[in-house]
Amino acid sequence: MANWRLHPQLDRDTANLGDLPLSRVLVNNDANYPWLILVPRKPDLVELIDLDEAAQAQLMTEVTRVARALREVTACHKLNIAALGNAVPQLHVHIIARFRHDAAWPNPVWNAVARRVYRRGELERLITPLRASIGLA
Amino acid sequence: MANWRLHPQLDRDTANLGDLPLSRVLVNNDANYPWLILVPRKPDLVELIDLDEAAQAQLMTEVTRVARALREVTACHKLNIAALGNAVPQLHVHIIARFRHDAAWPNPVWNAVARRVYRRGELERLITPLRASIGLA
Repeated sequence: MANWRLHPQLDRDTANLGDLPLSRVLVNNDANYPWLILVPRKPDLVELIDLDEAAQAQLMTEVTRVARALREVTACHKLNIAALGNAVPQLHVHIIARFRHDAAWPNPVWNAVARRVYRRGELERLITPLRASIGLA
Repeated sequence: MANWRLHPQLDRDTANLGDLPLSRVLVNNDANYPWLILVPRKPDLVELIDLDEAAQAQLMTEVTRVARALREVTACHKLNIAALGNAVPQLHVHIIARFRHDAAWPNPVWNAVARRVYRRGELERLITPLRASIGLA
């Protein structure tokens, strides 16, 4: 994973929760929804199907681990899980906690409402229990 | 899989390509994008993380098989893969072929432009090579 670097747009829009064996776990700085992003730390990945079978299985394990933690911490009504990558080509998986009262429900979150950055302290109050639940140091 | 039934909205909006060991493969009747949907044929599934580990691995195998076929047949520029389920609660995975000249690019497809149903013959010309490439009878 020596040649891997996080895409600058992902870096700019997120905070870093830590690394799982394959993926970096990010939280999107958009307080409209608790929104995590997993980025496999291997260079030149674009599509989910670019991963070899072992890495794909590992990613699925990590998606499950993070999605369960997100649901547990937020008590959300629905999870949205997606690998799109039309705007940012580096392979990344969105894991988003949705509520029937959130800003975009029932629509998908992309291009729904303007980003609302977290206030000081608000982000820490989300990150701390998520790190514990995911098992990130 | 005796107690499983396809959700009526998915049934109404799609054509049936056939069954893989776990999932039914559907094509969304929206000619704006070549758009497949996988539905695991087990009752009462809502979230990806509701699947046990073996079924999750099988679903990932089937997503890969279908996504590779879709890319091969359409020569698309990008794949979009997503499990959302805010509107239709039955677990289903979207696998969408995206082009830099398509109706919604670079935005996600949901709520982007009005559905355009396939003309007679047009759907068959997509389904026939897809069935062959996926390996559905």
